Amino acid sequence: MSGTALGVSEYDAAQSEVADDMARHLDSLTKPKGSLGRLEELGVRLAVIQGHVPPRLHRKVAVVCASDHGVSAEGVSLYPQAVTGQMVHNFVNGGAAINVLADSCGFEIVLVDCGITEPTGLPAVRDLRAGAGTRNFRREPAMTREQLDRCLDHGEQLVQELHSGRAVPFSESDAPARPADIIALGDMGIGNTTTAAAVTMALGAPEDVVDRGTGISAEMIEHKRTVVRDSVAFHSPFETPLDALRALGGFDIATMVGMLLALRGRRIACVLDGFPVTAAAYVAAHIDPAVTSFLFAGHRSKVRGHQILLNALDLEPILDAGMHLGEGTGAVLGGFHIDLAARLASGMASFTDAAVDESTAPEEEY
Amino acid sequence: MSGTALGVSEYDAAQSEVADDMARHLDSLTKPKGSLGRLEELGVRLAVIQGHVPPRLHRKVAVVCASDHGVSAEGVSLYPQAVTGQMVHNFVNGGAAINVLADSCGFEIVLVDCGITEPTGLPAVRDLRAGAGTRNFRREPAMTREQLDRCLDHGEQLVQELHSGRAVPFSESDAPARPADIIALGDMGIGNTTTAAAVTMALGAPEDVVDRGTGISAEMIEHKRTVVRDSVAFHSPFETPLDALRALGGFDIATMVGMLLALRGRRIACVLDGFPVTAAAYVAAHIDPAVTSFLFAGHRSKVRGHQILLNALDLEPILDAGMHLGEGTGAVLGGFHIDLAARLASGMASFTDAAVDESTAPEEEY
Repeated sequence: MSGTALGVSEYDAAQSEVADDMARHLDSLTKPKGSLGRLEELGVRLAVIQGHVPPRLHRKVAVVCASDHGVSAEGVSLYPQAVTGQMVHNFVNGGAAINVLADSCGFEIVLVDCGITEPTGLPAVRDLRAGAGTRNFRREPAMTREQLDRCLDHGEQLVQELHSGRAVPFSESDAPARPADIIALGDMGIGNTTTAAAVTMALGAPEDVVDRGTGISAEMIEHKRTVVRDSVAFHSPFETPLDALRALGGFDIATMVGMLLALRGRRIACVLDGFPVTAAAYVAAHIDPAVTSFLFAGHRSKVRGHQILLNALDLEPILDAGMHLGEGTGAVLGGFHIDLAARLASGMASFTDAAVDESTAPEEEY
Repeated sequence: MSGTALGVSEYDAAQSEVADDMARHLDSLTKPKGSLGRLEELGVRLAVIQGHVPPRLHRKVAVVCASDHGVSAEGVSLYPQAVTGQMVHNFVNGGAAINVLADSCGFEIVLVDCGITEPTGLPAVRDLRAGAGTRNFRREPAMTREQLDRCLDHGEQLVQELHSGRAVPFSESDAPARPADIIALGDMGIGNTTTAAAVTMALGAPEDVVDRGTGISAEMIEHKRTVVRDSVAFHSPFETPLDALRALGGFDIATMVGMLLALRGRRIACVLDGFPVTAAAYVAAHIDPAVTSFLFAGHRSKVRGHQILLNALDLEPILDAGMHLGEGTGAVLGGFHIDLAARLASGMASFTDAAVDESTAPEEEY
């Protein structure tokens, strides 16, 4: 049964039925009712997304979108732009935080060059480039309409491949060709919190959305705020969310928007990482509000603007660990908890099967 | 270098040096400074416990202590006492939440019968029984002095075995005979939140420490509070923490106290689960305050008294996921995050090794 094949009210009824089935299933397992807390909520949400009780995850993929941002010429980051490409090499060599976390949490990594300044030439990097970095949006639109369309198409192409089982992770050429059922979205790109702030402000987020990405000084934050405010004013007004994305977005964010729009109706769960990824979800939700129905927020980043976007999307983060690294690290860690929720729901015995006495009195809400 | 071989001030200086080394090591890795948030703090604490940078975990063990509690005759739980033994069978058959979580998080399980009503006769259950359940402490001391000593000895014995690599988990006879470097402590026993409340109140915890363990009604909570209050008054005063433990404790808690006291100086980290396990740590810290130096709080349980004890022990929980299941589930989940901290610290490349440019300006505190 595909969600998109139904009218909204029928779809909601089907979702509610799956949610009830899953809640009953969880209550049949050998534990006090509700005692797995948040893991039970994650299980119910995943069951609704999959339309199946108990839900199962067979293939977990982290998609890390890298690109460069022309606005970094304005001096808004501690790191030089060359770091984007250097970190892509680091990913391929297995030395970054996302490599360790994805490996530990059972996620494959699909590494996508959405448009860094210099192509890496590495076969392990998926070449879906829309250009050699965006233009500096303080002075001109970040990208052309053609580049934006290319990014959106690339996102859709990635989802189609992941849905069909074809997208091959960079680290294992013999990866099973089965559909991904959960995608953790991550980003890498010097300047991308500036881009994320600009594009979300253009769509109505408050100015507080501008904060430090890396550990810049109070003075640099003030400068970053000025750059973002001036850039948004320079390109305003925007007729559509895509106009804002074209003027102020990045190739990474635009590619993720394409992915998010393409995920609808495919029963693939998506876990968001921090501020730039959640900015992509914020843009996508302005185009199609149904996008939020298959999203999880992997964590609450320490980047201040992240919480503002999570509130706007009505997403409660899985973890709150003070992280602010990017690369999909928070998405993969949160995604591990979703996987645990699925494993508990299918791996635990019921009271009946295990011959364990059930509660002798009705249980109260905790 | 063994902590116990040094005077306190020398030991503190050595700890502080390891902490500084670890912080420098973390800052050398390819990520913005501090961007792994809580995972960096966990890594530093583990390095200090191990006296080694970077810290490593080679063998992770969940020790689940099961026993019965005579006070359950007072009607303080939703579940009949028989459930303790039934759940031990469920553990052996792999159907409980702790089985799924330990398997997913890379922990072996050592399952200990500290004194449930009926011995299971199962070879997979470690027989360290101090009796067939405690007496009902509403009317008489929970255990004899001899039973208390037996529990403390059993705890020490378990730690010696885990330290030497001998304690064999129930699920794998070919488990590697290497020392455990992290122990996740868990409990199973109908009535054990009542026991935990009584023994901690006897040692000075406020009456708020009495709360629901499973989902009992407001009326049952009031009854439970009366039972605990009356029992503590009945046995007061207590000359030593061990007197309180004998009068109001459980075989599970007493065995865990023995473990915690024996862990000192062995450089094994210990992750606590919820309320009953943390009550054991609270008792142990009244006997030897240095116990807290190698402890982690795996999670913040929804059982209200848990937070009171965490505050008293000055432990900040790793996770806050609304769980209240017991069995070591929160300890294993928190322990997985400690393991991730260790893996990141040894698996990530440095800026130098990966040829990634470092920050061009000094980073500010986030």
